[in-house]
This record gives sequence, structure tokens and C-alpha cells, in this order.
Amino acid sequence: MSFFNDIVIFLSLFSFAFSQETFNSKIFLKTSITEYAENSEIQLKECLIEEVQLQCTSWRFAVEANNLSPWRRIPEECVNYVKDYMTGRGYQFDLDRVSNEAGVYARSVELRGDGKDVWIFDVDETLLSNLPYYAEHGYGLEIFDSLKFDEWVEKGIAPAIKSSFKLYEEVLSLGFKVTLLTGRSERHRNITTYNLIKVGFHDWDKLILRSSEDLKKTALVYKSQKRNEMIEEGYRILGNSGDQWSDLLGSSITDRSFKLPNPMYYIP
Amino acid sequence: MSFFNDIVIFLSLFSFAFSQETFNSKIFLKTSITEYAENSEIQLKECLIEEVQLQCTSWRFAVEANNLSPWRRIPEECVNYVKDYMTGRGYQFDLDRVSNEAGVYARSVELRGDGKDVWIFDVDETLLSNLPYYAEHGYGLEIFDSLKFDEWVEKGIAPAIKSSFKLYEEVLSLGFKVTLLTGRSERHRNITTYNLIKVGFHDWDKLILRSSEDLKKTALVYKSQKRNEMIEEGYRILGNSGDQWSDLLGSSITDRSFKLPNPMYYIP
Repeated sequence: MSFFNDIVIFLSLFSFAFSQETFNSKIFLKTSITEYAENSEIQLKECLIEEVQLQCTSWRFAVEANNLSPWRRIPEECVNYVKDYMTGRGYQFDLDRVSNEAGVYARSVELRGDGKDVWIFDVDETLLSNLPYYAEHGYGLEIFDSLKFDEWVEKGIAPAIKSSFKLYEEVLSLGFKVTLLTGRSERHRNITTYNLIKVGFHDWDKLILRSSEDLKKTALVYKSQKRNEMIEEGYRILGNSGDQWSDLLGSSITDRSFKLPNPMYYIP
Repeated sequence: MSFFNDIVIFLSLFSFAFSQETFNSKIFLKTSITEYAENSEIQLKECLIEEVQLQCTSWRFAVEANNLSPWRRIPEECVNYVKDYMTGRGYQFDLDRVSNEAGVYARSVELRGDGKDVWIFDVDETLLSNLPYYAEHGYGLEIFDSLKFDEWVEKGIAPAIKSSFKLYEEVLSLGFKVTLLTGRSERHRNITTYNLIKVGFHDWDKLILRSSEDLKKTALVYKSQKRNEMIEEGYRILGNSGDQWSDLLGSSITDRSFKLPNPMYYIP
């Protein structure tokens, strides 16, 4: 902070000009100057922190409201902001709220009970959390590395997102059929099943993964096609939970869909 | 804060037990106790403020991500939060960001130039700001009163939202046709035109207002129908800006739509 050092030096020289003053008053003046400079430095730091906080909150809003163009990584100045959000209470608050809202809606839906009432869940950052992986990769600052991420997936140790687990149980108990619609590849069917069961998920009706012909499609197109097929088969998709807008938009959109928070990555 | 008073009394009695101590040490102890209690009270207050901040930020995210069931007014505990956001820099940051993002997208679109390339703007809280009205009505805490709001509309003094004005000018200069699609009633056509022109808007192609048969429709249905009609007439709706999800969802959804922030009210 050379700016403040300059001010201290300038004001020290200024105080020197009044050297006819008593020793005590000079010390007092110098102390005041140093304190002033230190306080100003603290104030400037606080202003900068507030500025970054405002900018990154605004960025996160733009993510959650689907206002941003496709983005490949989080803004560098928001790394600590995203880390604090994901590891602090903010993320938990948001997860709990979306799960509770979805629960209120699920209980309000009248089911026909013919086995065609469906709730769709995405998997990553919806039922399973990859936060342990992203914590090791800058919370979204690093460009996505599919090889490294696959290694993580193949460990099968992703924890459950607790609030989603609560919703999952409720939706099942209300009589919905649950379909899991994930962007993961078909070759990860076994490890995904293993991981889901290990952390408590059970009794889903279908687990739909990307086949080889789906791999080049955007998630928006792939997931829309899968929903279209379900509608053609006579299913009524009544609820949809996902952390990406590409889980929720496109065709065969549900009456109510629930956007879980995710400021770490974007899938088109 | 009787809890703290109790602590002070308890600790004062505790200090009294050590009355064989010198006068100075008793004063010191009492001062420390009072300071401790005051500090704890300040800490508790700070915790409560932080808690409300977290809860209301989470609520605002749920609004902007379209996760909430229809709501009639803002949560009572969030009045100050919403006021601070709307009158502070947060709202401006968010408005600027959505306008900039929309501008980036608008410049990237290849127009056919046959007079059928359209950008839709909503009016209230998109081009015109009703913040002066809502500031007088609890920033969304009061249940919406259509008579009072109509009185405000009929004054024709709503200011422009500057960042939207910037986008509006850019979109026009790029060659888009601009359609204004508002939930306002047809009987407010003249005053709405007057207000828009007074604050600088110009050269729109169409201003669509609710006719008497539209008045009972939800905004989602009414706006979808109007977009459908435009598509049938051969228009390509390339961009859409609105502060409500009912401006943007439904049928004939655009490739990119832009959700302006609005934590004050919800229109289904």
C-alpha cells in the first residue's frame, strides 16, 4: 500500500514543520497520522471487500437467473466468494429452500396413481455433491477436465445432498415415480448406481444416462429428447429438479421446475 | 435485552463477593463485566443481522431462479433488506449486468433485415421504474392495491431504467424491431405512451396492452398468446427482456431471454 506510505511520509514531513511544538504534541500528531493512515487503509480494504462481494453476488444472481452467456469458469475475483458460499451456510440455506418449496408443490399435486406420475431428478449437484472434487479444483476456477472428473466419478464416493435426499424420500412416499436423468455417460451406469445406493437413494424407476449417440448433444437437447420420449410413452412429468438450466428448459418443460444453486460450473 | 441485564447483575454480585479487593480492581472488574455484556449484545445483534441477511438473500435467489410458489408480498423480515437492495448499489449492479449481457447477445445475432427481427421489452420494472411508488408502499410488503397503483400509472411520471434505456437504444440501432408487451390495460395506452416518450423511449414498432378479454388471463398465458400471434405473422422473436418469469416463459420462448431483477412483487 505505497499510497498510504506516501501519505504517512508527507504528513510526517508536514508535522516536522511544526517542530517548535512540544515533544508530546509531536508524538500525538504522528500517532494520529499513522492511525489515520491505518484506518484509511482498513477502510479502503473494507470498501474493496464490499465491492467484490457486490460484484460476485450480482454475478451469482445472473447465473441463477440464466442471464449469462455460456461460461467456462468462474471469474477469478470471485474464487473466495464462491468458496465461502459453497462451504458456508449460504449454499445450505439455498438448498434447503428449494427442497422445501419443491416439497410444498409435490404435496399439492393431485396424482392419478396410474404409475405415470413422474418426478425427474438430475444427479450431479442435485442428488450427489461433487463439492469434494471442486474444492480441489478451485471451486470452478479451473477449466473443466473431463479425465480428472471421470476419475473422481469412478471412485463412487460423492456424498448425498441432504436436502435433496429429504425431497426424494417425500416424492417417493407421495407416490411419484422417480426418473433420474443425468448427463453422465452410459459407461458410468454401475458406479453411479453404486454411489447413489451407498448414500441412501433407492427405488427409482429409471436411470437415464447418455448413450454414445447422445454424447455430442448439448444437455439441453439430450434432456429435452428424453423428456419428449417419456411424454410419448404416456408419462406426466409433474416436477423436475436440477442445478442447471439445461436440466429444466427446452421442450416438454414441466409445470414447476426447481433450480438448485450452482455457481461453480455451467453446462449448455 | 433482559438476558444481558441478568448476566450483568449476576456478575456484579459475583464481583461483590470479592469485596476485600481494592476499590480500583472492583471498578475494573465491573467495567469489564459491563463491557463484556455490551460486546456480547453487539455480537448477538450482528449475528441476527447476518442471519436475516442470509435468509433474505436466499429468498431473493429463490425469486430470481423462479423457485417460489406464487407470492403476494415480500417476507416481513426482509423489508429492510429489499429496501437496501432496491435503493442501494445491488439493484443497479444487477440491472447493469443484465443489460450488458443482453447487449453482448444482441450484437452477436445475425439479423435478416427483412423487418421481422424482433426484440420484446416488458414495460414496468423493465423500461419504466415504479420504485417511487413502491418506496411509498413498503417495497412490496403491502398487498398490491390496483386502484392506488393505477393512480400512480396515470400520473405518467415513472422514470426510465437507465441500463434498459441503453440496451433499448443499442437494440434499435442494430436493426431490431422493438415490441413492447405489457400487462398494463389498453385504457392506459395514452398515458403509457406519454410516459415512455417523456423519458426518452422512441421508435417502437408495437405497443401491446391487455384488451378487455385479456384482463382475466394470467400474464404467462396472455404474453404467450401475443408471442404466438407474432410468430404466426412471421416475426422472429430473437430477444426478450422482462422482470417477471411470466414475461419470459410459456410458449414461443425466445432463444435468449433476460430476467431483470425484481424482489418487490410477483405476477403469475
